[in-house]
Parts: sequence; C-alpha cells; structure tokens
Amino acid sequence: MKNLLIIGAGGVSRVATVKCAMNSDTFSKITLASRTKSKCDEIATFIKERLGVHIETAHIDADDSNAVVELIKKTGAQILLNVALPYQDLSLMDACIKAGIHYIDTANYEHPDLAKFEYKEQWARNEKFKEVGILGLLGSGFDPGVTNVFCAYAQQNLFDEIHYIDILDCNAGDHGYAFATNFNPEINLREVSAKGRYWENGQWIETEPMQIKMEWDYPEIGVKDSYLLYHEELESLVKNIKGLKRIRFFMTFGQSYLTHMKCLENVGMLGIKPIMHQGKEIIPIEFLKTLLPDPASLGPRTKGYTNIGCVIRGIKDGKDKQIYIYNVCNHEECYKETGAQAVSYTTGVPAMIGTKLIAKGIWQGKGVFNMEEFDAKPFMDELNSSGLPWKIIEMTPSLGE
Amino acid sequence: MKNLLIIGAGGVSRVATVKCAMNSDTFSKITLASRTKSKCDEIATFIKERLGVHIETAHIDADDSNAVVELIKKTGAQILLNVALPYQDLSLMDACIKAGIHYIDTANYEHPDLAKFEYKEQWARNEKFKEVGILGLLGSGFDPGVTNVFCAYAQQNLFDEIHYIDILDCNAGDHGYAFATNFNPEINLREVSAKGRYWENGQWIETEPMQIKMEWDYPEIGVKDSYLLYHEELESLVKNIKGLKRIRFFMTFGQSYLTHMKCLENVGMLGIKPIMHQGKEIIPIEFLKTLLPDPASLGPRTKGYTNIGCVIRGIKDGKDKQIYIYNVCNHEECYKETGAQAVSYTTGVPAMIGTKLIAKGIWQGKGVFNMEEFDAKPFMDELNSSGLPWKIIEMTPSLGE
Repeated sequence: MKNLLIIGAGGVSRVATVKCAMNSDTFSKITLASRTKSKCDEIATFIKERLGVHIETAHIDADDSNAVVELIKKTGAQILLNVALPYQDLSLMDACIKAGIHYIDTANYEHPDLAKFEYKEQWARNEKFKEVGILGLLGSGFDPGVTNVFCAYAQQNLFDEIHYIDILDCNAGDHGYAFATNFNPEINLREVSAKGRYWENGQWIETEPMQIKMEWDYPEIGVKDSYLLYHEELESLVKNIKGLKRIRFFMTFGQSYLTHMKCLENVGMLGIKPIMHQGKEIIPIEFLKTLLPDPASLGPRTKGYTNIGCVIRGIKDGKDKQIYIYNVCNHEECYKETGAQAVSYTTGVPAMIGTKLIAKGIWQGKGVFNMEEFDAKPFMDELNSSGLPWKIIEMTPSLGE
Repeated sequence: MKNLLIIGAGGVSRVATVKCAMNSDTFSKITLASRTKSKCDEIATFIKERLGVHIETAHIDADDSNAVVELIKKTGAQILLNVALPYQDLSLMDACIKAGIHYIDTANYEHPDLAKFEYKEQWARNEKFKEVGILGLLGSGFDPGVTNVFCAYAQQNLFDEIHYIDILDCNAGDHGYAFATNFNPEINLREVSAKGRYWENGQWIETEPMQIKMEWDYPEIGVKDSYLLYHEELESLVKNIKGLKRIRFFMTFGQSYLTHMKCLENVGMLGIKPIMHQGKEIIPIEFLKTLLPDPASLGPRTKGYTNIGCVIRGIKDGKDKQIYIYNVCNHEECYKETGAQAVSYTTGVPAMIGTKLIAKGIWQGKGVFNMEEFDAKPFMDELNSSGLPWKIIEMTPSLGE
C-alpha cells in the first residue's frame, strides 16, 4: 500500500485519479494537488460520489520545486504522478530527487515542440535518480506510453527481430462542432505546421509539414487520412528496439479540420504576436481560444471512437511476420465512467497503470526509464482489466516495402 | 459650365473626382468634401500632379444636412455628387432640396441590407424634388447604374419586348492574398449570408443564401461560379422594363473565398456581438477587419479583370432574340490611371457620367429618377469614351428556358 501524490487537475489527471481511486488496495492515500485547488475539489467530489473513496486535495505551484518537496513531506507521499503540464516535468523530477520518492509522467501526450520536447534533460537526471535510489518512469500515457509497451511486448514475446514500426493514432470522435480543438489551439497549430520527422536506416529524415499522407483502414473505424508527424516515443524506441530499420508516427486529421486551420492561419488568427486593435494589444491565437468551445465542454458531447496502435514487422522463427496491435476506445463510455472523453482517458489510464506497477514493486529499478525498458506483460494485463483492452491482428507482411 | 460639389473621399470618390477633373469643359469648379479633409487633399494633390487641374477641398459631416446646405451656398455648387456612404443618401438629398441643386448618388454599389436599402424613402422625395424643380439621379454607379442603362438601351434600341434579364457581375481580380476583402468584411458577410431574391411572373421569390449557383462563361475571363443574390437595381428595373417575365442578379464568388468565410463564421470570427476577452469586450468581426489587409492596400497589387453585364432576351421584329451586353475592365489599368482598382473605377466613372449628363442638360427632369428612365444612348457613348467601353454579343436565345 503506497501513499500517492498526483499533480495536475485537467482531463488526464481526472481519469488517472479516478482510476487510482479504484485501486484502493494499492494506494492507501491519494492527494490531488494543482494550482487551482477548486478543480481538485471537483474531482474529489466526483470520486466520493461515484466510488465512495476519499482523496485529499491541496494547492501547489508545480514550478516551485521546494514547495513540492514540502507538500511531499507533509503528505508523506512515496510516489509522485505528474499529470500537470509537460513544462513542469523537470521541476517535479527535481522535487522527487530531493524528497527521495518515485516519479511518473505522461510526458507530452500531445505533440511536442521539437526544440523543447527531447528526452535529453530528463535522461540527464538518470544518475541522480540512481544515487537517490528512486525510479523515474517517463511517458506513461498512451502515445508515448502504451505504444512503447506494445513495441516492447512484441519484442519480448512475438518477434526475434523487429525491423519496421508504424505507430498509428486515430481520433474519429465527433463533437458536433464545425471546428473545435481537444486542447490548446496553439498546440494544434504546432502539429499541423511543424516539420515531420521519422527514422530510417540509422538516420532521422525530415519532411515538410503534413507532406507524407496515407490512407489507413483503422479497425472498427474505417479509412482515415493519416499524416506523418514527429512524436516523442520515436526517440526512445530507436534506442531500445534493437535491429530496427524504420519507425514512423502517423496521426489522423480530417479535411475539414485542416481547412479550418489553414483559413485561420491565412487571415492571421493563429498569430502568436500581439496585434494593436482599438488601442489594445491582442494576441490572435489567444482570442481564437476565447472564441472556440472550451475543450472541457467537448467531453459530454463527443461520440465515436479512437484507435491507437502499432503495426510491427520483423522476423519470428526465421519467417517474415507482421502484426497490428491496437486499442479501440469509445468517447461516450469514457465520459460515462470518468467524466472525461477518450483523449484524456487513453492517457490517464496508462498513467495509473505505470504508477500501480511501481507501487506494487512489479516494475522496479533505480534511475530514469522509458516504458519499453520494462517487462511489458504485466502492463498489458492491466490494460485489459482497466478499460483499455487491446487486440492483435496478424497481417500479410507489407510494411517497409 | 457647372459648379460641382462631390462628397466622400473613398476609392469611388477618387475615381469620380479624377474623371470629373478630366471634364473641365463641363465643370468650372469642383469642391471635394468629406469627414476627413486630409483624404480630399491627397486626391486633390494627385489630380494637380496628374492633370494640372485645381480642385477645392473642404471638411463636411454628411450626416448634418444644414452643414451641407451651408457648404453648398459657400461653394456656389449647382450639383451635388454623393459618393459618401449609402447611409447618408437621405440627409444629402434633403440638403439638395433645401439648397435647390441637383443630386446624384451611386447608391449602395455594394450589397444592400435588405431592410434598409429599398428605394422607398428616396422615391418618397420625388414630390419635393419636383416642387423645387431639381433632378435627383439614383444609383449612377455600375450595378446599379450601368446595368440599368444597358437594360434601357436594349429596351429603347434593340428589342420590341424584353422578357428575361440576368445581370452578371464577375470580379476575377487577384490581389495575391489568400484572403482579403475589397471592402468591410461585415458587408461581405451580408452578401454571403443574406437570402437571395429574384423576380418572376409578377412576384418576388426568395432563396436560401447562395442556394442558386450557376457556372457562367464570362467573355475575356472564362467560367466562374456565380451565385444568385438580391441586388437593388432589380427593384427599379421591375417597375421600368415593361413586359418583363423574370429578372435575376448573379455575382461570382471563388470557392476559396467562400471557404474562408465559412470557416471564419464557424469559429465565430464574423460575430457582431462583443465577446469578453481578457477583461475587454472585443467584437470578432472588428478584430478580423484589423487582421485583414486594408482594402485600400489592394489597389496597387490587384491584377486581372472584371466583367459586368446583362444577358437580355426578348422579341425584336417578331423574332426571339438574346444579347449579352457587358464591359470588361482591367484592375491594373484602372490603378495606373486613377490610383484605384476596377471595383472603385467601374462605380466612379458612371458617377461622373451621370453628373456630366445632368450638368450639360442632356439628362433633364424634375423629380427623383432611376437610370433607366432616361435616354440611354448619350450615357452609352460616354462609357465608350470615358474608360468603360462595352460590347454586345448576339446569342442563341436560351434565357428563361
């Protein structure tokens, strides 16, 4: 039984906290803390009403490492789950080093600013984690997170060698608005306007934004336009999957979404520099954010499915082999269970699972680790029992040709 | 030789004033007045440099009828050309009644708010114009204006009976921006979002916004998507073209323009109600206007052509007959000559011509008149010699079938 501190109070945090509260045989005490304590209280009330489980709440400035250390001491927490902003990863890792407790994050489940979202600085804390004797688990969301575990499971159980991996992320949810974003439109803009990048034959290959598009038939969803993006799990998988020849990441974007983004860009509505308007400085993208539906309001109205998974090709017993391993998640069911839709759910559940495996001592280690460095089996079992069941399809080998 | 007062200092006024200054044998004195005198001075300087002609400038609040009467007396003007905002038509007509001088406007060359842009209130001043013994000429722009004259010319010279008229307005100019508007985006919005209306067999028929679309092959331009709109000249032509069975108005909109308008509408950027943003009320469409290129800046960069005209079908000498009468205008040549592109040029030149025909006593009358109530021939001749030459094509009769 472990004492857990969760930091952050957005949609992912809501799901992770609800799911941790469902595991009260693992977590003796849960404290939920964020900059806005009222958001924590709202989640605590939801959990009390739904599950009859009491959780503590607290105010915290996650950028203030010393304040976090104090809160850890005050609560007696043994594990810190970071579901705050990815910008706060380093200050929270440092707090865990000072307090001597385990650390888990989901990293930037969304799409990273290439300049800032390398693992470099987090990996650089490996020695300190070792010295203190604590475990740091990076990227325990869905992608990164479950996608890394899928690859590890394939490597450990299904293949002798893995040569090609395509990670495929499809959100086929429909919120009924002509245009709305699941999170900050600035991050959406980055996705669409950032250069793509993938790894092949030992080197990184850069593409123009949205240059590589393919039509992919997602099981239980159908054919969707999918665009090659850079995504952070590629960085660790290239290191940890031996014998790899190529790895890519694709995400679906609807034509209407892209058209709206392009039109808004064309008129300057995605601008991040202030514009003088009637004597006041207005940042266009901030005004756009004000105009658009609050992402939190999408939860109750989003219908449809997500499908995220990996197509993996390699060799098994001397034979060419290709599999598709994926999870399909329903927005409405997620909302019914946790009050958040599938985009938050698919990240929050793996955050709980990573935390649980560490709490139970199933995943052990000293230092900073990525998901694929552990035994995938117990994580895969937890996915099945915690609301993110997965399937494996054997395919005719074609990836890489 | 007449003494002329021109009110307004936008693009149309610039063109009309330049063209009047070219007719110094008709206008002994020209005074250009607007709310912003510096704009008048800029046009006066342009005319002095280009043509060596001196014009007077003055400040005026066109909404203030008494101030306009005073200015008329001070300048000794015998004719008032209104190229200010259409909102000021009535106060300027009233000033002409009080001062006893002729009145010309171009009405709302743009697209009218159906509620406000009926001729009703202007026609209601007919008796007063008669009493005072002055002439009021309404809508001496291109459409309305030249399009009315085209119809009148056909009625007077080319047909025994006119049954069908389609007015076709194509702006195929390219300003090189992904999206920009030739005038206030709020007026553009009205065009796209207003219900359409046309007249057939004695009654008005309303359509959904942009409901009726046709592909039309514009001479010297090519095929363009054209949408049925309501346009104010329909109201007077229905009264003045006898035997008419149907009259419609079409305007071209590019798919990209419509897509941008739709996307902006979808995110709420065309909203006219204030939105609270960071503690300040912002009206979205006003912020959009701030973001978009200043319409005045489009002049020097617009390339390509406009084609505005009428397709008219009727009976001549017992035979079915159909003609297409139109003008093609080049944006760059207009800008070279007057410092304004074709959208302003095609309105400003007919404003001068109407004024000239009244000044020379060629168009005479007491009361308020629409263009088609006069002899079209002298106007048609002036179009040819003043930069808007027209062509007539005989067509195989098909309109109305």
